[in-house]
Amino acid sequence: VVLSLESITLPEDMPQIKGYDFNQGLDHKALLQSFLTTGFQASSFGQAVQEVNKMIEKRLEPVQEEHESCDSHTSASGCTIFLGYTSNLISSGVRESIRYLAQHRMVDVIVTTAGGIEEDFIKCLAPTYLGDFSLKGKELRQQGINRIGNLLVPNDNYCKFEDWLMPILDQMVLEQKTEGTHWTPSKMIHRLGKEINNPDSVYYWAYKNDIPVFSPALTDGSLGDMIYFHSYKNPGLLLDIVEDIRRLNSKAVFAKSTGMIILGGGLVKHHIANANLMRNGADFAVFVNTGQEFDGSDSGARPDEAISWGKIRMDASPVKVYADASIVFPLLVAETFAHNANRLIKEKKSD
Amino acid sequence: VVLSLESITLPEDMPQIKGYDFNQGLDHKALLQSFLTTGFQASSFGQAVQEVNKMIEKRLEPVQEEHESCDSHTSASGCTIFLGYTSNLISSGVRESIRYLAQHRMVDVIVTTAGGIEEDFIKCLAPTYLGDFSLKGKELRQQGINRIGNLLVPNDNYCKFEDWLMPILDQMVLEQKTEGTHWTPSKMIHRLGKEINNPDSVYYWAYKNDIPVFSPALTDGSLGDMIYFHSYKNPGLLLDIVEDIRRLNSKAVFAKSTGMIILGGGLVKHHIANANLMRNGADFAVFVNTGQEFDGSDSGARPDEAISWGKIRMDASPVKVYADASIVFPLLVAETFAHNANRLIKEKKSD
Amino acid sequence: VVLSLESITLPEDMPQIKGYDFNQGLDHKALLQSFLTTGFQASSFGQAVQEVNKMIEKRLEPVQEEHESCDSHTSASGCTIFLGYTSNLISSGVRESIRYLAQHRMVDVIVTTAGGIEEDFIKCLAPTYLGDFSLKGKELRQQGINRIGNLLVPNDNYCKFEDWLMPILDQMVLEQKTEGTHWTPSKMIHRLGKEINNPDSVYYWAYKNDIPVFSPALTDGSLGDMIYFHSYKNPGLLLDIVEDIRRLNSKAVFAKSTGMIILGGGLVKHHIANANLMRNGADFAVFVNTGQEFDGSDSGARPDEAISWGKIRMDASPVKVYADASIVFPLLVAETFAHNANRLIKEKKSD
Amino acid sequence: VVLSLESITLPEDMPQIKGYDFNQGLDHKALLQSFLTTGFQASSFGQAVQEVNKMIEKRLEPVQEEHESCDSHTSASGCTIFLGYTSNLISSGVRESIRYLAQHRMVDVIVTTAGGIEEDFIKCLAPTYLGDFSLKGKELRQQGINRIGNLLVPNDNYCKFEDWLMPILDQMVLEQKTEGTHWTPSKMIHRLGKEINNPDSVYYWAYKNDIPVFSPALTDGSLGDMIYFHSYKNPGLLLDIVEDIRRLNSKAVFAKSTGMIILGGGLVKHHIANANLMRNGADFAVFVNTGQEFDGSDSGARPDEAISWGKIRMDASPVKVYADASIVFPLLVAETFAHNANRLIKEKKSD
Repeated sequence: VVLSLESITLPEDMPQIKGYDFNQGLDHKALLQSFLTTGFQASSFGQAVQEVNKMIEKRLEPVQEEHESCDSHTSASGCTIFLGYTSNLISSGVRESIRYLAQHRMVDVIVTTAGGIEEDFIKCLAPTYLGDFSLKGKELRQQGINRIGNLLVPNDNYCKFEDWLMPILDQMVLEQKTEGTHWTPSKMIHRLGKEINNPDSVYYWAYKNDIPVFSPALTDGSLGDMIYFHSYKNPGLLLDIVEDIRRLNSKAVFAKSTGMIILGGGLVKHHIANANLMRNGADFAVFVNTGQEFDGSDSGARPDEAISWGKIRMDASPVKVYADASIVFPLLVAETFAHNANRLIKEKKSD
Repeated sequence: VVLSLESITLPEDMPQIKGYDFNQGLDHKALLQSFLTTGFQASSFGQAVQEVNKMIEKRLEPVQEEHESCDSHTSASGCTIFLGYTSNLISSGVRESIRYLAQHRMVDVIVTTAGGIEEDFIKCLAPTYLGDFSLKGKELRQQGINRIGNLLVPNDNYCKFEDWLMPILDQMVLEQKTEGTHWTPSKMIHRLGKEINNPDSVYYWAYKNDIPVFSPALTDGSLGDMIYFHSYKNPGLLLDIVEDIRRLNSKAVFAKSTGMIILGGGLVKHHIANANLMRNGADFAVFVNTGQEFDGSDSGARPDEAISWGKIRMDASPVKVYADASIVFPLLVAETFAHNANRLIKEKKSD
Repeated sequence: VVLSLESITLPEDMPQIKGYDFNQGLDHKALLQSFLTTGFQASSFGQAVQEVNKMIEKRLEPVQEEHESCDSHTSASGCTIFLGYTSNLISSGVRESIRYLAQHRMVDVIVTTAGGIEEDFIKCLAPTYLGDFSLKGKELRQQGINRIGNLLVPNDNYCKFEDWLMPILDQMVLEQKTEGTHWTPSKMIHRLGKEINNPDSVYYWAYKNDIPVFSPALTDGSLGDMIYFHSYKNPGLLLDIVEDIRRLNSKAVFAKSTGMIILGGGLVKHHIANANLMRNGADFAVFVNTGQEFDGSDSGARPDEAISWGKIRMDASPVKVYADASIVFPLLVAETFAHNANRLIKEKKSD
Repeated sequence: VVLSLESITLPEDMPQIKGYDFNQGLDHKALLQSFLTTGFQASSFGQAVQEVNKMIEKRLEPVQEEHESCDSHTSASGCTIFLGYTSNLISSGVRESIRYLAQHRMVDVIVTTAGGIEEDFIKCLAPTYLGDFSLKGKELRQQGINRIGNLLVPNDNYCKFEDWLMPILDQMVLEQKTEGTHWTPSKMIHRLGKEINNPDSVYYWAYKNDIPVFSPALTDGSLGDMIYFHSYKNPGLLLDIVEDIRRLNSKAVFAKSTGMIILGGGLVKHHIANANLMRNGADFAVFVNTGQEFDGSDSGARPDEAISWGKIRMDASPVKVYADASIVFPLLVAETFAHNANRLIKEKKSD
């Protein structure tokens, strides 16, 4: 065709597009590996697997025990992994993947929203159900059923949560008054993780494994409702967010290297990235969300925007997967943390 | 066609689809009014105009002065309007629309994120520029320029912000120590609004007009960075989020009726809706965002999901406009608050 | 802050972000002009206005009457404008904006889908109504009502369409057999535009003003259903798509310059862009759609992808507005074609 | 909480939300099965697996050999499966999944766009490469490289396609003139599938297995470019779309039951659904795409909208998965067609 310019020769090592050939039989592992050369978001998924595996390799690198371990600031891990996720993912079955990571101390810092905290505890008390996106709000309201996308949570679950939480709030107020405990959201979550004492809980394991969980707007949800009601019966509880920002930023600043795995947008995305700005950028980053950049939201911003801010290093190779995390995150855990479970769990035990 | 079933007769008053006829000349007002019968999101925009105007009419209804005005809880307005917006909208020119609403006390409660606070002040110190979504992060980083969608903010702006903020933080610590001031995010924002003393600022007017501004995760941004750095030089500042949740929820609980206008998703959407749950639902609601429900996020949830929770009343007629607020919100303000400016501003003055 | 790099000085003429100030009163024209410096998609809208106005200026440039007007290939216009839109926009009130452009011969070539043709004629026969996105399909089916987003079209409308169309199909078959008429989709649309003889119709005006309308998959819709049924009663009709691709491509190849205005994705976007590839790229381009690039679809591709193909010139400044066209296109027509109506209509008359 | 209404008791068989537990080891099959109770789009994926498996079971049901097999209209399959996909999926590695389905005659009717045809042949001539979404159009153009999302196709590939196609076009014109061949898009695709004679090609197998492939706008792409150029050298080729609409609709009308599997939107989605309207609706349907309903596009319409039209049966349980098909479709094929390969391939052989 006269109109076409001649092509340059592409580099020999440039991957050719080739999908999975089912004629070779059904091998799920090979199928997922074929995603890298399948194109579009399948390739992004393949790149996300590579990026998380880079975090894991860095994490497994022997850390030269620097001078004295008494420097409590310096991280003992070769790569401090920050995991962030929105509330809905705890409501969904992605919770079990997150719980696995916390249980085996495969991540170091967690950031989530208030719902991301309370829904985990509520699920220890009563189940969440599969419904449908198109169920009518009015009918559900009359039945006392709350909808989260295609999930359903009965009001009773929140009543059980109230019964569990109120005595703990009493105790927290007491400790504040008698022992001078300075409560912060992360300390409260740590305490709740201890109290729930249930191995199904993400925050039980975060408590057990001393993984700090940050949620600065912890009052924005059912926890806040309870704190609000409770404050009229037993006033005085104080939740300070200044100490937590110090603690979170320190996690980034004193890390040898950092990786960010962020599911969804809003506060959880910004808060982790902002903490990594304090160290001139994360070394590794994977974002999984459905947001788009066209409205200028931080939620939808591409990783390249974060590079302009110094939230991700200029020489990093961050990956965004445009997808609902409910499909992508379990698959991503499968090909990274679970795939390396033996090495990671051994490492943890030998700490 | 044999396949077609016969149609029922549709109600006579069902609106027929008809767009604007430019043959009648260019009348922008009439053009915007034609949106109601244009279909798709144009109709949703038309419905949002109607919904906000219902809030305004309710707001303008004479409120029978209940017994004593000393009951500080009971709102003096017929409709308490909660306005929420994400940080990026303050970075954009939507800020001027928001400032107009605050300046003329057309809304009663504001909820935003940390960036939604600090970017307003920073813009009083130095301008934000129009760039492009595709500018490369690495090059921008090397030039000290931060990107927000297609906006650009030089690092210098944040330096100016630091210079402005640090002495105020010193003063806040001092007051806490000497006067026992119990700082909360809303009190800090009130103070900053006073200090900026600039009529371009949203929070200057919020301060002047006593509009509480809630931002529970106020440490999640440049403000948090500054607080973090400052805490090493002058430690001790405490920001409590419990008092703020009491204050926010009370605004909803003691309102005669409430309206929610929420631009974007994440914390600002959930926080306002959750407060309205405390009163068994808002009476009026308009959401403007680009989120979708399929991933189960609260950001993308349709208003009907909020009805199942009791965040919006069962008999309300909430509207969601799927659009970037940068286009829709100024047009919405034009057809509602600005259109009713004379009546609204008079009302305010005669308070 | 130690972490921040110093900023370069941005160019003096770089626009500063500033939104509309409602304190200056409600001036819709000025409000829309402020969009350019409002950021995000408001700025994209402002840039789209500029881009379309560039097409119009080019169009209004005096064309040196080249040698003889008998060279039917060479366009008489300084800029040949290709307008494409999906079916739903004809169902919506955007149809009236499109009809205005066809009526005053403000565009030169139209590309749409089958539904984009037939819905225009059907609306001449019976109205489309405003419904709601959440009306249940089963109930609507039982009532004989078809839903298009939040629009409703009774089955009866399609029966009326059938009654109108069948005799025309008879006539077309007759002419093919007796006069050897070689039917193509564009010729059929031309004929239907003549037959409808109704100034509300887009294609009536396309017929009157000799604007070719291309819809290669014209059988994909109610028209196809009718042609299918009709073919059993009166077989033999033939619709050839080869002659139409010659005609469409020639429109691009022989144009002095070209502009593309494309609302929505799919065939209409690809077909216009592909025709412009035949001339090594359009000179001007505006896309309005809600598609995203992450799934590799042509619908969601940014204009920059089209540059790689030579569908848009390398030195062009194409604009994509991420928005529902029902809001954006009437506003865009207002600020461009309608704003320049006097000059454009005069030009047409003096042809 | 006083505000909460009491909940009704949910049905005992309502699925509880529970994700995969990696503590049980890494079992991909079990992981994918856990998606059904993971919520959000993971559940939609699980439902899509169920829906496709219903098509397969119906397909495998013994068909009572009705009277005489000479009735060529009546389908021999218990469920006629219509597969539709957009062009980009052939460019991607999803092509290999589609090829597998065609190779083993697991689907009965294919609908795609022009690009969905030609890219398959081009890939037989030269590879497509993995690039990046952010590569600059201008630089690519100068290098003769075309971008499709994050895929790259050198111009040379299209030159090879031209060399391959031109003699075939000559031959087609000759046959039309000498043998009176009445070319339609589906007949042309059938011929090209024969000519390519390459087992990597989808359309080679469609040819071998007599699977009709419909693409009414076959001129909208590189094929159209070639036909356009060729028509000047050797004019006269005619492609009729009327015969194809008869053929497509008959496939739906005379089917025992039908299933639709549609990847992406635009023409391919509408064309299959419209054909199924001719039989008062498909019995089974799975849509995989990233479109949204808010803009009233058919691409983004939920299956429930199709029920209002009679394109899907009122008692069907159609599923939409909101996702990029590059991730979801290979997984869907794994859990359905490939999982049932032994039974399906046996069935085919014993036809």
